[in-house]
Amino acid sequence: MTSHTRPIGVFDSGIGGLTVLKHLTKVMPDEHFIYLGDTARVPYGNRSADTVRTYAQECARFLAHHNVKMMVVACNTVSAVALDTIEHYLTTLGGTHNRTSVIGVIDPAARAAVSTSVSGRIGVIGTRATIASDAYAIAMRRISNGKELSIHSRACPLFVPLVEEGWTDTRATRLIAEEYLRPLIAQEIDTLVLGCTHYPVLTPLLNELMPNVALVDCGACTAVEAAHIVDAQQSEGLHRTNIDLYVTDITPAFGMLARQFLGMPVDDPVRVTLDPAHFETSL
Amino acid sequence: MTSHTRPIGVFDSGIGGLTVLKHLTKVMPDEHFIYLGDTARVPYGNRSADTVRTYAQECARFLAHHNVKMMVVACNTVSAVALDTIEHYLTTLGGTHNRTSVIGVIDPAARAAVSTSVSGRIGVIGTRATIASDAYAIAMRRISNGKELSIHSRACPLFVPLVEEGWTDTRATRLIAEEYLRPLIAQEIDTLVLGCTHYPVLTPLLNELMPNVALVDCGACTAVEAAHIVDAQQSEGLHRTNIDLYVTDITPAFGMLARQFLGMPVDDPVRVTLDPAHFETSL
Repeated sequence: MTSHTRPIGVFDSGIGGLTVLKHLTKVMPDEHFIYLGDTARVPYGNRSADTVRTYAQECARFLAHHNVKMMVVACNTVSAVALDTIEHYLTTLGGTHNRTSVIGVIDPAARAAVSTSVSGRIGVIGTRATIASDAYAIAMRRISNGKELSIHSRACPLFVPLVEEGWTDTRATRLIAEEYLRPLIAQEIDTLVLGCTHYPVLTPLLNELMPNVALVDCGACTAVEAAHIVDAQQSEGLHRTNIDLYVTDITPAFGMLARQFLGMPVDDPVRVTLDPAHFETSL
Repeated sequence: MTSHTRPIGVFDSGIGGLTVLKHLTKVMPDEHFIYLGDTARVPYGNRSADTVRTYAQECARFLAHHNVKMMVVACNTVSAVALDTIEHYLTTLGGTHNRTSVIGVIDPAARAAVSTSVSGRIGVIGTRATIASDAYAIAMRRISNGKELSIHSRACPLFVPLVEEGWTDTRATRLIAEEYLRPLIAQEIDTLVLGCTHYPVLTPLLNELMPNVALVDCGACTAVEAAHIVDAQQSEGLHRTNIDLYVTDITPAFGMLARQFLGMPVDDPVRVTLDPAHFETSL
């Protein structure tokens, strides 16, 4: 399979990464995407870094088997703690996998936040694991180019279940959001990184509660950077966008949430196992 | 290993089952308990029945390897959809496993609810999977003994993350509980089954919102029935209570939540894998 026909792999702990896929399909409408959601083990956000690394490698192995030219790690938690694990794993495979780019959502969003912020006072919200990793703050300081930054982070573990319950603007959601955001508002941030794939669904509420704060959607930033990398690698053979959806568990709420996250109707996903015995023979 | 020295195995998708273990240790203080929490894959409550059955069998295999005389399935979701899977699995193992009793939390709680309710108007709250299975309603109708029942169920998926956030009595939690319970209150239930291991932690709030409704804690009912079964099997060789804690992932919040759920300080858990390659050779 040559580079221009190789698909782009996208993976996430669940289906939240479809908010990232939405932006990827917008900026690269002619690509073939393979999306893997590890819905049998979602969420990763409250697990130990060690377990997240194990799961991430299993997802990467699945996508490597599909000979993707790029892996987009849509999951903030995996991007925060396991990007190097995946890059190292691909080098051990050799062959075309040495030419597989890996991009996470942290660095693109960190770059966007640093360039968006005027005051340098930046907030980050995410899962417990993402916030505990401090990955956004580390990335922002690395690329700050001398700009003075004051970074304020807050784990918001209730946002994901609220979104999955469809409660994006109830009184309870508003109270919880106020509670989570209070310390960030007190710090007078002017930019907020939405460091979890589910959070863009809460954008209207967040805009209302923080009207003067710029929201950074990691999916949008990552899609733009991913498109640059793919452009650099390929200049021919474009074909119609298509998306193959794989999940490790098909749950009743899948269709409803997938439409909401992706912003368009989706085909039924294919359920797969990440056990290499079921696919690695043809690698 | 003879029957009276064989331990009692307790398993749950995570650490919520410690609320069941708490009651088990109260009624059987002289037993040796092995607790397994599948924290690497928690929660089971939003997964498909098929996936829950696979995970349940893997947990049962781990406990069978420890030669338990009884398996207490503390997880409502597993009890609802996979009890028969576990019973069947044990028969395939033969040997002492043929003498391993299996008890879930559904039947004991259903019996308690039917006998507690005066009006026969009973509410059930639980995870999406438990409620979708209709297991409580089916069990209550089976054992109703002609008593007329009107059963009203409601999935409350936000209760678990609220408890794990430690928000057991915030304004937001109260609003969410009011929203979830409104249809049950409107149905004038006199008894409510707390069909999830995390929910007993919300007892004070639930009592306040439904002052005339009897709450059925599945852990308490199950412990009483489990003690009867163990008594029947064993009449000698009692020894001091001890608890071995195993989890598939050690997460930062473990200690805090474990103390809250179990009602006493706990030792650090041992992290294990459920891959039989790591333990089944000695079976």
